[in-house]
Amino acid sequence: MVLAPSAAAPDYFARHRELLDRAVITTANREYWSPYPESPSTSVYGEEAPKQGEAAFREQLGKDFVLEGHPRSGTVHAGEVSPYGLALGVTYPRLTPNEAIAAATAGIGPWRAAGPDTRAGVAAEILARINAASFEIAHAVQHTTGQAFVMAFQAGGPHAQERGLEAVAYAWAEQKRHPAAARWSKPQRKGEPLVLDKKFTPVGRGLALLIACNTFPTWNGYPGLFASLVTGNPVIVKPHPGAVLPLAISVRIARDVLTEAGFDPNLVLLVAEGPQDRIATLLAVRPEVRIVDFTGSTEFGDWLEGNARQAVVYTEKAGLNTVVLDSTDDYQGLLRNLAFSLSLYSGQMCTTPQNLLIPREGIDTDQGVRSAAQFADDLGAALDKLLGDPARAAGTLGAIVNDGVHTRLTEATTVGRTVHRSTSIEDPAHPQAAIRTPLVALLDAEADHRTYTREWFGPVSFVIGTDSTAHSLRIFRDTVREHGALTAAVHSTSEDVLAAAELAALEVGVHLSENLTGGVFVNQSAAFSDFHGSAANPAAGATLSDPAFVTGRFATLQSRRPVRSREAGDV
Amino acid sequence: MVLAPSAAAPDYFARHRELLDRAVITTANREYWSPYPESPSTSVYGEEAPKQGEAAFREQLGKDFVLEGHPRSGTVHAGEVSPYGLALGVTYPRLTPNEAIAAATAGIGPWRAAGPDTRAGVAAEILARINAASFEIAHAVQHTTGQAFVMAFQAGGPHAQERGLEAVAYAWAEQKRHPAAARWSKPQRKGEPLVLDKKFTPVGRGLALLIACNTFPTWNGYPGLFASLVTGNPVIVKPHPGAVLPLAISVRIARDVLTEAGFDPNLVLLVAEGPQDRIATLLAVRPEVRIVDFTGSTEFGDWLEGNARQAVVYTEKAGLNTVVLDSTDDYQGLLRNLAFSLSLYSGQMCTTPQNLLIPREGIDTDQGVRSAAQFADDLGAALDKLLGDPARAAGTLGAIVNDGVHTRLTEATTVGRTVHRSTSIEDPAHPQAAIRTPLVALLDAEADHRTYTREWFGPVSFVIGTDSTAHSLRIFRDTVREHGALTAAVHSTSEDVLAAAELAALEVGVHLSENLTGGVFVNQSAAFSDFHGSAANPAAGATLSDPAFVTGRFATLQSRRPVRSREAGDV
Repeated sequence: MVLAPSAAAPDYFARHRELLDRAVITTANREYWSPYPESPSTSVYGEEAPKQGEAAFREQLGKDFVLEGHPRSGTVHAGEVSPYGLALGVTYPRLTPNEAIAAATAGIGPWRAAGPDTRAGVAAEILARINAASFEIAHAVQHTTGQAFVMAFQAGGPHAQERGLEAVAYAWAEQKRHPAAARWSKPQRKGEPLVLDKKFTPVGRGLALLIACNTFPTWNGYPGLFASLVTGNPVIVKPHPGAVLPLAISVRIARDVLTEAGFDPNLVLLVAEGPQDRIATLLAVRPEVRIVDFTGSTEFGDWLEGNARQAVVYTEKAGLNTVVLDSTDDYQGLLRNLAFSLSLYSGQMCTTPQNLLIPREGIDTDQGVRSAAQFADDLGAALDKLLGDPARAAGTLGAIVNDGVHTRLTEATTVGRTVHRSTSIEDPAHPQAAIRTPLVALLDAEADHRTYTREWFGPVSFVIGTDSTAHSLRIFRDTVREHGALTAAVHSTSEDVLAAAELAALEVGVHLSENLTGGVFVNQSAAFSDFHGSAANPAAGATLSDPAFVTGRFATLQSRRPVRSREAGDV
Repeated sequence: MVLAPSAAAPDYFARHRELLDRAVITTANREYWSPYPESPSTSVYGEEAPKQGEAAFREQLGKDFVLEGHPRSGTVHAGEVSPYGLALGVTYPRLTPNEAIAAATAGIGPWRAAGPDTRAGVAAEILARINAASFEIAHAVQHTTGQAFVMAFQAGGPHAQERGLEAVAYAWAEQKRHPAAARWSKPQRKGEPLVLDKKFTPVGRGLALLIACNTFPTWNGYPGLFASLVTGNPVIVKPHPGAVLPLAISVRIARDVLTEAGFDPNLVLLVAEGPQDRIATLLAVRPEVRIVDFTGSTEFGDWLEGNARQAVVYTEKAGLNTVVLDSTDDYQGLLRNLAFSLSLYSGQMCTTPQNLLIPREGIDTDQGVRSAAQFADDLGAALDKLLGDPARAAGTLGAIVNDGVHTRLTEATTVGRTVHRSTSIEDPAHPQAAIRTPLVALLDAEADHRTYTREWFGPVSFVIGTDSTAHSLRIFRDTVREHGALTAAVHSTSEDVLAAAELAALEVGVHLSENLTGGVFVNQSAAFSDFHGSAANPAAGATLSDPAFVTGRFATLQSRRPVRSREAGDV
């Protein structure tokens, strides 16, 4: 039963029904589908969209972010500074945990009673308006994460929205696996059957806390936000202090739609914090918080899993993304593809390959045998070629997001033999931006074990010489089993090696890309078709998105009542 | 892709395909369905079945239980003694945790490769043979749990098998939510589309540990066993020391079928222990153990949730099952129904009502207003009437399962005002059996708060005088929110009160039965239609069965590979 919250509220479910149905179908068939166009083109988004989006972004700078009716008891100076040099100077409402919890949970009753259809409709409307704000959000993403504009638009806009819709689809479909009502009639040997009428109601687990990251605030944030919301839970959005604005805009839109649909806008709250605050750790262990979604460091993810025991905790942490190089019939394609994977957003993706395992003696290629050392040099040359033009290079690399990455880059110069130095790129459009090319070092599988078995988040990758492909696969298994990985790849012309790599990937629980030499990259995954994370190795406790990502967010509760024989006869 | 493990292996999936399809459909429509007939009748199970089943049971007494090819490094004297007086004297293989883990995990590869269809077929065949052994298992259940024979047959046989099949259905369907393969084709503005072939493979989380209980070894054990097995995981079955035999028989059958299907029988292991052993706690925290299913005390369940951190933990613990009495138009029906609920298996069900909340001033009934005290007396009289004939009473009550229940019964004589004493019943057929009628005490909501807010597992229930139905509902909310409940019930002729009770039940996360006065009882739930447990209150971390019960047991892992343009054209 769907209760319209008020007669005047728009029927967002009807408006988006076709989209939702298509989304559910596509999660099941895993085919290509892109409901939100990824091109930042005026022919798609309108002549005025780019200008209006940028103006909307700039309008907010240096001001207190407007969230109508949002509770607050102070002001947060998050201190967001763009990696491109701009100080954003936006302030946000400050809330205590008690204030946030009280406000977020006040409207839970009508939201539960609204049912899955209404909730999915509201979520789809939020996404439609977020999509319309893609240019505004793109600027906010660029100037908090350091992603170059086109990437900020795509990954922070339409691709993030698609990951959000995917979560809506899973959450909506999962709540409808069981009927709202059923009649149960058990024949008796003598006399009338026993007849019961039963009701089944999906009920949210309770207040959700979203702890978002610095590098992909929307892409990694939307799945948990929408999965929790659609399953009937209020959501406290706690952005990374360095990347508040993209989620603040998203929260503003969500609250607008909730209000128009007749619900309490405080079902979605922004709880910003400054770099010195600890509100995430305070909120995460509160008994009222029943769901936690987290993207970020392994250390804090492990802490949440160990301490937020009252909640179901979904984490995306970090690991050792690995490429096994065995052979190829398209060496140049391999190098081009890998160079781009290492360069995209300066390797600041949780999916960027770090460990490139290759036999010291070399691999067979269409250009002859290339030893590990030769491959490392060739990869360096491919990076130089890809990043030779400063303007184009800047568009691929983006900017370094924070000091931690700089520190690791410096440290990486001291390990192994550097075969490709990390150099600065001058972007004429952003003279203050810290733009760096990837560092590649040549390591040895035995001697440098301690170096490559830790994560070097940022533009640091290792070509690791091994005894053989079998040895590479052994290292792949051992390191991913122990430290996890979000991506893995293999290059081989041998079906046997590919099969062995597939088996190893199944055994250690990581998704595998094979022989990518063209326009698909190991660090990219497409919503509705590719899973991100596997919940099957230490790098992630969740998959974006799958049924397991939503089933823990609600329970289906049942009531049952006998049907008097007269009524039973009316069936 | 389903790989038949050997050409000679029978195709159990084809044999049971129709049953599996029907099971999946029925989990979705929640209608009545009973694939395994509950009647211990020769017309269903065959003329010889009762005799053969009893003979098979008796044949095992005093001997070492035969499990062909089962690893062992010693012998367990579990010390099973029937509550009906018979010392079983069966011994079982003893295994160390290391031996068990090594043996159980050795065959995981082919079991994973077999795929969900083959695994579901094997599980359905196991259940078919367990069903054929229902009489043997019924005797084993009777003489370990103290359930009377007919109940042991039904709850330990067909009803348990149905819960097992239900878990098979969820596990099988959930693994097939995503296709085994998909082709993804992304149009490009210029040139050919990007085309990838993708494979999706459900992969089990890893070794599962089933920690079963004394009172319902099969009913509470099969769901976890089959959910884990069908999702690709080996299972170590660790029975309660007092109820090993029913699960030992089940394990024997599972191993026979696995062997015939060409798989390693050690995918299902029996790890029995004696009353002084601690193997469950040792196994539960082993890194290799990735799934734990547990039914039993809140104390051990909480310990597992807190300590088996490497595993996903599904628990069925205990709570305060509550009945809210507001009004009725069938007072005699209410009393009869409730008296039976309290008497069935001497209240030794995790679903037996404990706290009966009723306004002190009384409730409206078709026989006038009945005060709390009058209702308590009437309930006592209904119990006396139900249990007046010793032979019939013995068939309802069964026997007291262990000393803990006796101790609580004694303690319960000291609380409140006993309105119905627990008396001994002599069963001529089982002179040594400890058979007890339920104790009912009248308590006050204020004065006796500490008494009724703890669980009194066994034949102990409280009529609790409250200020009003609103007060009863408040206590219902507060106590179930804090302590949990596996069942709840309400009696009212007012739709408003029923609606308020439904809302309260949704809010505290418990399933609700309304106005049960006939042949359906609050402590019984039907597979495929009724959920058991809700995972939404402290009494249980799992629901038997629902999608959440299976999604955590496997991951869907993906590989992807570019399709060369020539191949892509062949689509």
